[in-house]
Amino acid sequence: MTYCVAMRLKAGLLFASDSRTNAGVDHIATFRKMSVFETPGERLITILNSGNLATTQSVISLLRERLAHDGPHLLNVPTMYAAAELVGRTLKEVVARDANDATLGQGVDFGANFLVGGQIRGEVPRLFHVYPQGNFLEATEDTPYFQIGESKYGKPIIDRVIRYDSSLSEATKCTLISFDSTIRSNLSVGLPLDVLLYQTDSFAPAAPHRVTHEDAYFNKLRRGWGEGLRRVFAKLPDEDWFSGQP
Amino acid sequence: MTYCVAMRLKAGLLFASDSRTNAGVDHIATFRKMSVFETPGERLITILNSGNLATTQSVISLLRERLAHDGPHLLNVPTMYAAAELVGRTLKEVVARDANDATLGQGVDFGANFLVGGQIRGEVPRLFHVYPQGNFLEATEDTPYFQIGESKYGKPIIDRVIRYDSSLSEATKCTLISFDSTIRSNLSVGLPLDVLLYQTDSFAPAAPHRVTHEDAYFNKLRRGWGEGLRRVFAKLPDEDWFSGQP
Repeated sequence: MTYCVAMRLKAGLLFASDSRTNAGVDHIATFRKMSVFETPGERLITILNSGNLATTQSVISLLRERLAHDGPHLLNVPTMYAAAELVGRTLKEVVARDANDATLGQGVDFGANFLVGGQIRGEVPRLFHVYPQGNFLEATEDTPYFQIGESKYGKPIIDRVIRYDSSLSEATKCTLISFDSTIRSNLSVGLPLDVLLYQTDSFAPAAPHRVTHEDAYFNKLRRGWGEGLRRVFAKLPDEDWFSGQP
Repeated sequence: MTYCVAMRLKAGLLFASDSRTNAGVDHIATFRKMSVFETPGERLITILNSGNLATTQSVISLLRERLAHDGPHLLNVPTMYAAAELVGRTLKEVVARDANDATLGQGVDFGANFLVGGQIRGEVPRLFHVYPQGNFLEATEDTPYFQIGESKYGKPIIDRVIRYDSSLSEATKCTLISFDSTIRSNLSVGLPLDVLLYQTDSFAPAAPHRVTHEDAYFNKLRRGWGEGLRRVFAKLPDEDWFSGQP
């Protein structure tokens, strides 16, 4: 499995993905389940993926291959909406090709989910969730984040602390804690993580951060969060459930 | 959906279930997704269920009906292992009846999961997870708890604090927090909750506790936990992710 989170905050965009099972394929700039398409100074588009690896690899490969072709591709589409639509269309193309083949489709789930976010000059940063059917949803100020893959373990902490005006540092702290909770409860999600932060209107080159078992900040968070939770838990009152019983 | 947790600790057994969607059917002693079969002084068996409501209702109804028949039933089986086996057998019987009918089975999931725990005089308390296939797993000292239904949101806190030697008060506190996290992140799980605690070797009559929106202890926990988490989060260090960037 996989766990990916993306947030679209006032301060900018956050992308984070684990790296278990899947391997990246993009030669442009791929960081495992994270693929980056960029023209520094003009656009940055980041794609996170979960689901059938054959499908996601094909989609990313086709998106990359077509950068050299005429016709719309991720480095010339005019808006992030068009970028999301292009990812959805490419996904439908791959699924139609693979799932219709007479030799395949026997109970195999060809589905994949993509988080597609970024900023193209002339627009604000935007973030989309492209569903296995190819249609897509955009993050809003009310719902500033999306998750794909093993999303449930790490959702409560995000729901509690993330708002549209959270800083990128807070968002990163929360996201790393969310991954820690997921990794502790589900073996199919594992380190290293890839984290990419983008400040609104910066159009700076992508500088993804790889979080390994040795990452000092991540380890400080894991330890501090675990100890803090146990401290809060211990301080909460106990109820005497048997006082009224014989 | 549903969320149920059961724990088998040194101190005794804990059972907890939400009450959204499903309604109980057992006349003996049913508390929504919780059904109790007991002979005070001799045995207490509690069953929690999730999954297809028609299936779970039928299984509980048959188990109840057969208390008046000859042959093995929940009030005369000699061990908790036999009780789990009986629940599994009854589940297979119901699924075979309903899912094989020519008028049904069109994409319907007839599956159900049961947590079956209790103590029968002569044995220690035991807890089983009966799978949709009717086979079952027993909780051990290493893995002292089971969850069914929407289990993922509320798993991290249990993994962090529950050990075989946790007290029943701690276990209840943890379970209520686990339900709170689940309820906040998933609308399909809702109050009121049913909580049943059983002290090892007590063979006391079941005294289930209903946790509503007005429950003072639950509200104290929700508030204290939420505030505590945010306090711990705020105190954890922030990283300056952009210091090295142009």
